[in-house]
Amino acid sequence: MRLVTLTTDFGLTDPFVGVMKGVIARAAPGVTIIDVTHGIPPQDVLAGALVLEQALPYFPAGTVHVAVVDPGVGTDRPALCIELHTGVLLGPDNGVLSLAAPPGAIRRIVHCTEERFFLSPRSTTFHGRDVFAPLAAALASGTGVAALGAEVGDMERLEVPAPVQHGGVIRGEVIYIDHFGNLVTNVREQMLAGLRRVRIGIRDARVAGVSGSYAAAPAGAPVAVVNSWGLLEIAVRDGSARERLGAGIGEPVVVESA
Amino acid sequence: MRLVTLTTDFGLTDPFVGVMKGVIARAAPGVTIIDVTHGIPPQDVLAGALVLEQALPYFPAGTVHVAVVDPGVGTDRPALCIELHTGVLLGPDNGVLSLAAPPGAIRRIVHCTEERFFLSPRSTTFHGRDVFAPLAAALASGTGVAALGAEVGDMERLEVPAPVQHGGVIRGEVIYIDHFGNLVTNVREQMLAGLRRVRIGIRDARVAGVSGSYAAAPAGAPVAVVNSWGLLEIAVRDGSARERLGAGIGEPVVVESA
Amino acid sequence: MRLVTLTTDFGLTDPFVGVMKGVIARAAPGVTIIDVTHGIPPQDVLAGALVLEQALPYFPAGTVHVAVVDPGVGTDRPALCIELHTGVLLGPDNGVLSLAAPPGAIRRIVHCTEERFFLSPRSTTFHGRDVFAPLAAALASGTGVAALGAEVGDMERLEVPAPVQHGGVIRGEVIYIDHFGNLVTNVREQMLAGLRRVRIGIRDARVAGVSGSYAAAPAGAPVAVVNSWGLLEIAVRDGSARERLGAGIGEPVVVESA
Repeated sequence: MRLVTLTTDFGLTDPFVGVMKGVIARAAPGVTIIDVTHGIPPQDVLAGALVLEQALPYFPAGTVHVAVVDPGVGTDRPALCIELHTGVLLGPDNGVLSLAAPPGAIRRIVHCTEERFFLSPRSTTFHGRDVFAPLAAALASGTGVAALGAEVGDMERLEVPAPVQHGGVIRGEVIYIDHFGNLVTNVREQMLAGLRRVRIGIRDARVAGVSGSYAAAPAGAPVAVVNSWGLLEIAVRDGSARERLGAGIGEPVVVESA
Repeated sequence: MRLVTLTTDFGLTDPFVGVMKGVIARAAPGVTIIDVTHGIPPQDVLAGALVLEQALPYFPAGTVHVAVVDPGVGTDRPALCIELHTGVLLGPDNGVLSLAAPPGAIRRIVHCTEERFFLSPRSTTFHGRDVFAPLAAALASGTGVAALGAEVGDMERLEVPAPVQHGGVIRGEVIYIDHFGNLVTNVREQMLAGLRRVRIGIRDARVAGVSGSYAAAPAGAPVAVVNSWGLLEIAVRDGSARERLGAGIGEPVVVESA
Repeated sequence: MRLVTLTTDFGLTDPFVGVMKGVIARAAPGVTIIDVTHGIPPQDVLAGALVLEQALPYFPAGTVHVAVVDPGVGTDRPALCIELHTGVLLGPDNGVLSLAAPPGAIRRIVHCTEERFFLSPRSTTFHGRDVFAPLAAALASGTGVAALGAEVGDMERLEVPAPVQHGGVIRGEVIYIDHFGNLVTNVREQMLAGLRRVRIGIRDARVAGVSGSYAAAPAGAPVAVVNSWGLLEIAVRDGSARERLGAGIGEPVVVESA
């Protein structure tokens, strides 16, 4: 039996996630289900895609990853299954799976049209329950990806905004903000390699250097680190950089030689 | 070993839910526990009852469902076990189990008075840990419902407010609001069948027709759908109907022929 | 295979907890993982320590408890493993494990320096994923505590503020506030034993007596109970004492004979 993971914007205040697990447990008794998170901001497909991309490498090979951030539920957007060399992805064809499935990692892409796998009747508002949970149970129980529908050539893809490097200056932006209020940017560790000492500007804060830990700064002061996703991150020691700096998603970040 | 589900208003910021699971795992090693939700609004017995009713059909037959929304904990309100034809319910006798247990579905109702199943000492504030978790473990491990106490004839029942239909007009209300801010009404899909084209009024919004999906409306506009519970729901495309319309639980909803 | 529990301040909106579970499941297939809570207030080491202390007794003997509230991640603070007579604790050496490990309960304390157990590369910001999850998987799979590193004599310890008793008066304070807004004090049930009838003062509220249940007070009124942790707690019937009384952590509470 394969492991199943769930990534959604359903939150945990309603029974939606529990019901998905009930559907999976009923069809695939004994399956292990792990929540990646259900705290994706409502309808934020890009955040869901980023989170899935970051989480994927830490799960066992063969895991079935279900990601449902699905503002188009009930329309004709296809239900997608992507067989990777390292696991299987299930979700709507709106880009939420795309960052976790770069072209070289893909073995097969399928539109899940075989309705015999779905719950019946099928609602138009909750395909997590009626489509993706039963498909996950089928895959976890040994059904092959090819049985779910016809192979297709491609899927909707999302782009993460790319930083621009010019001279000694990198212009990036905040692409994710975590529970601690840490500001995750799109500047990758590798881009920083060419710069000997850096100064980072965001809003009215100027941060000198990339530190080895959050605790390198005094309490309440901003600090830059390379985070666990390999990305430049602006934090505030023992506080929230989001609140302290008043920054949100899309906030420009400038990195230059000091 | 039977599956156990948990539905509470305990939230997830405290160790309450984890401790319930520890008690169950200690007494019934290997049992699978699924959270329906712990986000029932504090002390909102009706919301707990609605959620349990909606979730129940999606779990395997024989599942033990524990629901603890229990403002009367520590008083003499009985601890209830209801054996259904399709599973078993455990919770306080305050109505939280009642919507999931319509008379025809019930095989037996028992007051759980056999204290040998409880933790000892037993607190007066946390029967989730001291009473319901050990009872769930016992049931999951094969203890029969009859062993828990004496059979009784009935229990506290809750009523969901019923919509009123008069002429071509249905007057209902909002009975549940989900994480997305979608407004779930008490108007069932079947009631709409007689109306050819409808106009729905809530607060100062007028919605024309019941749509096939959330995405049928332009972004930011209200849209009416039949949701995954079979109920009329007012949503706002890519937004929150609760915030956009300023509506809460009990808000009147009027459906009439257009 | 031993049970693993997780207690963190990571929240549930990011993939951090899910990724820790992926790492554990990959290295220890089939292990059962129970969340104690991930809702410890960010960087609140004392709250994490209190929660772990309260939860511990309800889990099976031998359980591996991981607690990560770790503002010093990436510094040279050691990673700690404590073998108790009843289980094993893993976490940073900053006091978060200390309340659950009183001296008499400890069999062995180890600094986890054996890097072969860690993920590689190892980030400086997420030792939950890179250090503690793989250590938990190793312990759950049968690795002995002694294999993780060298034994040490002691660890960082936290103190819960102690109440002061003078004459017939106990001066304590609020040390924890739960999801319901209940105010948990540091006054233990045993301290109340000598007082025949008590009057409790907090902010501008005066509560007469310790009641047997929350429901002993009229709706909206404050009520004092001995809670499920054996501590004096001030609640408001069907409401939030935190909001109603405007009290926070550290708020003084005075108990005197009525």
